[in-house]
Amino acid sequence: MPTYRLDISYDGSGFSGYAKQNGQRTIQRELESALETALGAALRTSVAGRTDAGVHARGQVVSFGYDGKIEYARLQRSLNGMLGPEISVAGIIEVEDEFDARFSARWRRYRYLMDPRPSLDPLIRHMVWHVGRAVEFETMAEIADGFVGVHDFSSFCRSVEGKSNVRNVEEAKWVQREGLYEFRVKANAFCHQMVRSMVGYCYDVGRGYAEKGQVSDVIEAGDRSLVGTVAPAHGLTLWDVGY
Amino acid sequence: MPTYRLDISYDGSGFSGYAKQNGQRTIQRELESALETALGAALRTSVAGRTDAGVHARGQVVSFGYDGKIEYARLQRSLNGMLGPEISVAGIIEVEDEFDARFSARWRRYRYLMDPRPSLDPLIRHMVWHVGRAVEFETMAEIADGFVGVHDFSSFCRSVEGKSNVRNVEEAKWVQREGLYEFRVKANAFCHQMVRSMVGYCYDVGRGYAEKGQVSDVIEAGDRSLVGTVAPAHGLTLWDVGY
Repeated sequence: MPTYRLDISYDGSGFSGYAKQNGQRTIQRELESALETALGAALRTSVAGRTDAGVHARGQVVSFGYDGKIEYARLQRSLNGMLGPEISVAGIIEVEDEFDARFSARWRRYRYLMDPRPSLDPLIRHMVWHVGRAVEFETMAEIADGFVGVHDFSSFCRSVEGKSNVRNVEEAKWVQREGLYEFRVKANAFCHQMVRSMVGYCYDVGRGYAEKGQVSDVIEAGDRSLVGTVAPAHGLTLWDVGY
Repeated sequence: MPTYRLDISYDGSGFSGYAKQNGQRTIQRELESALETALGAALRTSVAGRTDAGVHARGQVVSFGYDGKIEYARLQRSLNGMLGPEISVAGIIEVEDEFDARFSARWRRYRYLMDPRPSLDPLIRHMVWHVGRAVEFETMAEIADGFVGVHDFSSFCRSVEGKSNVRNVEEAKWVQREGLYEFRVKANAFCHQMVRSMVGYCYDVGRGYAEKGQVSDVIEAGDRSLVGTVAPAHGLTLWDVGY
């Protein structure tokens, strides 16, 4: 069966996350419902990153099999008409039959925005964690280095019984951008709440609340209680996905 | 009477502009009502830029006279509690008695964001004009040069009978930023819809819709019908004000 790839972005503010849940307004529900309307068939989709409630996406990837011809430009217009402006479809292409948005992905990148400036910026309030206080940028940058590598991230995840929390973090760094602090992280995959826990830990140490120990010790301990803060969802954006 | 200066920013999306209007939800109405609640007195405020409906502000300045003692931090917290998160008060200070946010201002700067990329970015949809098509950046940059200087901007303003449209534009340029085109303009003051008309004109020429003539000719003609497009309000932000 021919397989198609959708590239989408969304403002997660008004959604209960990506994945379908009974009765909730989710990205997947809206998207599958729009696809069904446009193509006249119920489809099963796969997604690169099942973002949590309130999390945004810029380069999210969705795939589905569909046994029919698709007029790309027309379908895109139709989907954007139904889903916009909160969800935007940037592209539709046919891909090899084996392609699966979730299982074919080699890496995911996320970005997290923190605002240390005293007063809140109303224009970006839906996409930035306004901590509104001094945070030691250099300290957070050092911590980020410690995340890189293949580790068991149980200290930084909401674990699922029987599932591994070993991930390969290829890149983790803080950058400064127009007064904001941005955490950029790339890994083969992420476990649940991993980026937000990393950010929360950096913040706790950066504001002098948690002791500045070795990140490697926290990772090795495999103890979630060592990471007290999970940064709020609305500062997080799934940035892009590599195949 | 002691005079105070407020520095505020706001997301203009949900407001009918800055200035009070009967029955409308405006920034001025919300702000003066919050000040009255906090200080127990009805105050008259002055503002640097009376932004239109949907226009945002980052460095807006408001002043008012008040015959009493103000505890800055407490008033700021109180105002932010009432006005946030759409309006944010960044600072309150006492200034010289003669200070007037409107009449003391030496210059205002505005920025306008245009997105030429084919698909809409949901996260910034409230602050960017998504034109979604190729626009010649270099052409727009050339036009911007022509705005600089002391000119009668009647071609670029919604004129008010009997009022001069002569303004001194000190800086006008287009810059590229993360795939977006940003118009930055600084002048002693702006007449009504001036920035949005400048952007609209740049866009019309940049997309090949209007002829690429000399901007000086359009300015000299003093004929508003030569500028067909007024860019939408939500792309515009009052950036800062100089005293």
